[in-house]
Amino acid sequence: MYRAPVEEIAFTLKQVVGLEKGIGEGRFGDLSSDLVDAVLQEAGRFATDEVAPLGLAGDRQGARFKDGSVTMPDGWRDLYHRWIEGGWNGLSGPVDFGGQGLPVMLGIATMEMWNSGSVAFGLGPTLTQGAVEALDKHGSDELKAVYLEKLVSGEWMGTMNLTEPQAGSDLAALRARAVPVGDGTYRIFGQKIFITYGEHDFTDNIVHLVLARLPDAPAGTRGISLFLVPKFIPDADGKRGRRNDAFCHSIEHKLGIHASPTCTMIYGDGRADGEPGAIGWLVGEENRGLACMFTMMNNARLAVGIEGVAIAEAAYQKALAYANERRQGKAPGYTGEGMSPIAAHPDVKRNLLTMKALTQAARAIAYSCAHALDMAHSSEGTEATFWQERANLLTPIAKAFSTDIGVEAASIGVQIHGGMGFIEETGAAVLYRDARIAPIYEGTNGIQAIDLVTRKLPQSGGEHVHAYIAELKADAEALRNSNLPGLGRTADRLDAALADLEGATRFLQKALADGKMAEALSGATPYLRLFGLASGGAYLARGAVAGRDVARVSLARFFAENLIAECAALRDRVENGAESLEAATAALAS
Amino acid sequence: MYRAPVEEIAFTLKQVVGLEKGIGEGRFGDLSSDLVDAVLQEAGRFATDEVAPLGLAGDRQGARFKDGSVTMPDGWRDLYHRWIEGGWNGLSGPVDFGGQGLPVMLGIATMEMWNSGSVAFGLGPTLTQGAVEALDKHGSDELKAVYLEKLVSGEWMGTMNLTEPQAGSDLAALRARAVPVGDGTYRIFGQKIFITYGEHDFTDNIVHLVLARLPDAPAGTRGISLFLVPKFIPDADGKRGRRNDAFCHSIEHKLGIHASPTCTMIYGDGRADGEPGAIGWLVGEENRGLACMFTMMNNARLAVGIEGVAIAEAAYQKALAYANERRQGKAPGYTGEGMSPIAAHPDVKRNLLTMKALTQAARAIAYSCAHALDMAHSSEGTEATFWQERANLLTPIAKAFSTDIGVEAASIGVQIHGGMGFIEETGAAVLYRDARIAPIYEGTNGIQAIDLVTRKLPQSGGEHVHAYIAELKADAEALRNSNLPGLGRTADRLDAALADLEGATRFLQKALADGKMAEALSGATPYLRLFGLASGGAYLARGAVAGRDVARVSLARFFAENLIAECAALRDRVENGAESLEAATAALAS
Repeated sequence: MYRAPVEEIAFTLKQVVGLEKGIGEGRFGDLSSDLVDAVLQEAGRFATDEVAPLGLAGDRQGARFKDGSVTMPDGWRDLYHRWIEGGWNGLSGPVDFGGQGLPVMLGIATMEMWNSGSVAFGLGPTLTQGAVEALDKHGSDELKAVYLEKLVSGEWMGTMNLTEPQAGSDLAALRARAVPVGDGTYRIFGQKIFITYGEHDFTDNIVHLVLARLPDAPAGTRGISLFLVPKFIPDADGKRGRRNDAFCHSIEHKLGIHASPTCTMIYGDGRADGEPGAIGWLVGEENRGLACMFTMMNNARLAVGIEGVAIAEAAYQKALAYANERRQGKAPGYTGEGMSPIAAHPDVKRNLLTMKALTQAARAIAYSCAHALDMAHSSEGTEATFWQERANLLTPIAKAFSTDIGVEAASIGVQIHGGMGFIEETGAAVLYRDARIAPIYEGTNGIQAIDLVTRKLPQSGGEHVHAYIAELKADAEALRNSNLPGLGRTADRLDAALADLEGATRFLQKALADGKMAEALSGATPYLRLFGLASGGAYLARGAVAGRDVARVSLARFFAENLIAECAALRDRVENGAESLEAATAALAS
Repeated sequence: MYRAPVEEIAFTLKQVVGLEKGIGEGRFGDLSSDLVDAVLQEAGRFATDEVAPLGLAGDRQGARFKDGSVTMPDGWRDLYHRWIEGGWNGLSGPVDFGGQGLPVMLGIATMEMWNSGSVAFGLGPTLTQGAVEALDKHGSDELKAVYLEKLVSGEWMGTMNLTEPQAGSDLAALRARAVPVGDGTYRIFGQKIFITYGEHDFTDNIVHLVLARLPDAPAGTRGISLFLVPKFIPDADGKRGRRNDAFCHSIEHKLGIHASPTCTMIYGDGRADGEPGAIGWLVGEENRGLACMFTMMNNARLAVGIEGVAIAEAAYQKALAYANERRQGKAPGYTGEGMSPIAAHPDVKRNLLTMKALTQAARAIAYSCAHALDMAHSSEGTEATFWQERANLLTPIAKAFSTDIGVEAASIGVQIHGGMGFIEETGAAVLYRDARIAPIYEGTNGIQAIDLVTRKLPQSGGEHVHAYIAELKADAEALRNSNLPGLGRTADRLDAALADLEGATRFLQKALADGKMAEALSGATPYLRLFGLASGGAYLARGAVAGRDVARVSLARFFAENLIAECAALRDRVENGAESLEAATAALAS
């Protein structure tokens, strides 16, 4: 059973990504290191004792749909209410609306824990948080007054409605319509699919944020507006009032996250009393909906990245516990009684260490992205720009690298369990199933790679990314100068990986500058992987230098000597793979 | 929907692994190239039109257990009977007992097709075939007379009973007991788990092959004997007679292959009439059961490898069809109307080509292993030894590399489908679920890697593997000399990969010779992967030289320029990874 790794999380936040330094600089109000510990401890307790025990049963029972309503698994509604009563929903929410205004770092760290307990549970609040951010930043004062406090407390939950059958990665194809009523409201019509937590019984109202087109809006993405569409329209007192014409038509039968209802939503079908059309309110400006949506999507991308970290951590813990208990054969050098724990066999050890090292690397990247957001919020001018660019740079890596390693770790976790891993009751298989959605939603990992290459590498005239790589190089140098025992060739390997990252970066920047878009896009996915491995290795090195303990030093070394040699091959694919990729189109036609 | 790739399969058999040459040498009786085509065509039709359409529904319904009986999904019993009526069960079975005695190559190629249609369906006959081989090689004439014809025709099915709760990878811990009755039979007692097709309604008898210990047998693996235990004891006429004390206690609730019943079997619990104890007959000699079991396990390992190929092929086809149909965004250079098919986006193209190239590579390796078995059967003396060693060498690679890439391809397949891939009805998810068992059963892939390094590399004083690598090098050389257009750096890349394979091989052979077992075992898994990639690249090159078509040439190039650069990193892990792996044990304890 999952136990929240509170110490490791605190160490990563404070020593690796810079929370301690930020506190020292007084960036986070009266937040103290002790308060951080207290928050993480309590979140860890809740995730370990309350969320995790309901995760597997929730998967088995799943969310159930009947007559437009969704019933969540037994005990989940109570769990959610205990969770919001703990104040967790508003942890990093806006203070003006009842939030605690704590750093995003703490929000992300606690989110990791909920998701390790159950991704299906952690997902709902992630969506609500996105809605809070979009409203807080783009909503009118009237909308904020009615909705924000309830969304921050968690009394009501929020959703994001983007996808339609013909419009997934490409929102230009979106068709949902919004017709102005004349009183400041709009009537929304259309079908949305894959709407997470679009319907459920956790809360007595649900606040949908819906992308739709106004009449005569320009075609493409410049003609999309964002609307707030509540399930129940609040009355003058802000209480839930009459039923809006926004209904869940069905929920999907999915590979994983069975307890998270994935809804097809129908707006304006005339199922509610009165004239057809779901009543909605504009959020932000007309035809600027995509910009508003990106506010929530960027943070949602980091949140999805954390799902990858969370699953990898849960898979690692489960596999380690099994491997320490299960005995088969005799490992080389084993001198104990009877059979060895399988954890002593080199191949199993390699698998466990791979899981652990990738998890730590991905965690540091994701937390670092949260740190950059907090730094941006707590600074101004060029400093704020710098940190916002840092967050922009790290977001696609935090999303894609973490969720890819989430799938890998979950798969290795099943493997370590042997035949038992394939049995659903063991609980390793559910992680393998749940993990598979994260590389897909909130922009597939392929889209993340394109975003990284085409939008993030050009930041600040192409210089921003090199400033980041320079920081990572300083970590490698600090490790080299640390005189820590047991480092082996860690520093050399890290230097080589960072040189590969730098070389591949310059190659892609040149390809973009030369207008060779196909070449740049062909290398995007291997480049993102290279970025994740090289930066992850640097963060592990930073942790080793800060912690100076055998566990961190040896893990950084394992990562450097066993995992990041792949960087050279990845750079090669970035720089030399495009031509053969294009040429092999013929092989797909045969 | 899956369409059997009959042409590609025939090409691989004939041109890549040597079926055509073997026919020319008269090794396979009156088998002609045309007959091969006819067999593959008909198998392709059956797999495409009959097996595949029932696969997804079978997954959804699953095998159902009640009161000791298992009901298979709707239509599956009929499907099985149409399949055995087609003579498919005995395709490469012994002629003396009604089999067609065709090469293992054809058996494996057709098995690929059944498994692409449905692994859960293909699995049952795989087990029966293992039972046929064990009985044919080790059974007494009396046992053969009663059982072989029925097992070859498929009228009865067979099972393999090895695993017990405490004895999985390590059979030394096995506890099931066999007590001699005095009349030549034995009474078997014990519990076996994870017994595939241990109970079902396909056939009116099931023939279990069960490992158990005789009284006073030596401890460990030298005290294990093999017994044949029929569900119903045949009467004097060979018809099924009274119920034996061998019962299915329950079936597992699994991640995948839902329609394949995975049974807990209880022997000798007294549930049948008469004295407790399941009646069994010894197969082979007392205490030599493991040797008998290895006969069936080796071929079962190749068969499981084929499951990986089959799933990868099915996943590729499904993803390609979706990617050609689904339109989103505009790919670079796309000049068509509206949105591009997603297959035109470089990242999706990379994913599709990765699936296809890995599938072809794994197929060639697996077929090559089957070819070696056929060559061994059709030769004598040192030639037979040579080919048997070749089969021995390739078996762990065919099993582990193929099943690893099966999981990878199935995962990429889900990814290409985007959100739709996560919906069970789409049929991509079931492949991801089904694929996950193959790296586990018939010896985990970690065990395969250990087998490769510790048992196969030392064959013929360490020289056998180098003869094989020399053949692969000749393929690279032939490609270099082919003057085919569009090869890019294929030959250089292949040379480098094969040099890495050779270097890593010599490193491991030296480690073994020096008694550095932990070092050798630490590198086993990356070495197996290196072996699969480098040899797979050579087979693709061989196919390109033989086929001289753009599709094969460009695919070989894609593989060489995009996938096998990883070989250098793998060699590095083999040669330099062990120390940091051992040192990082500390990280698992923290």
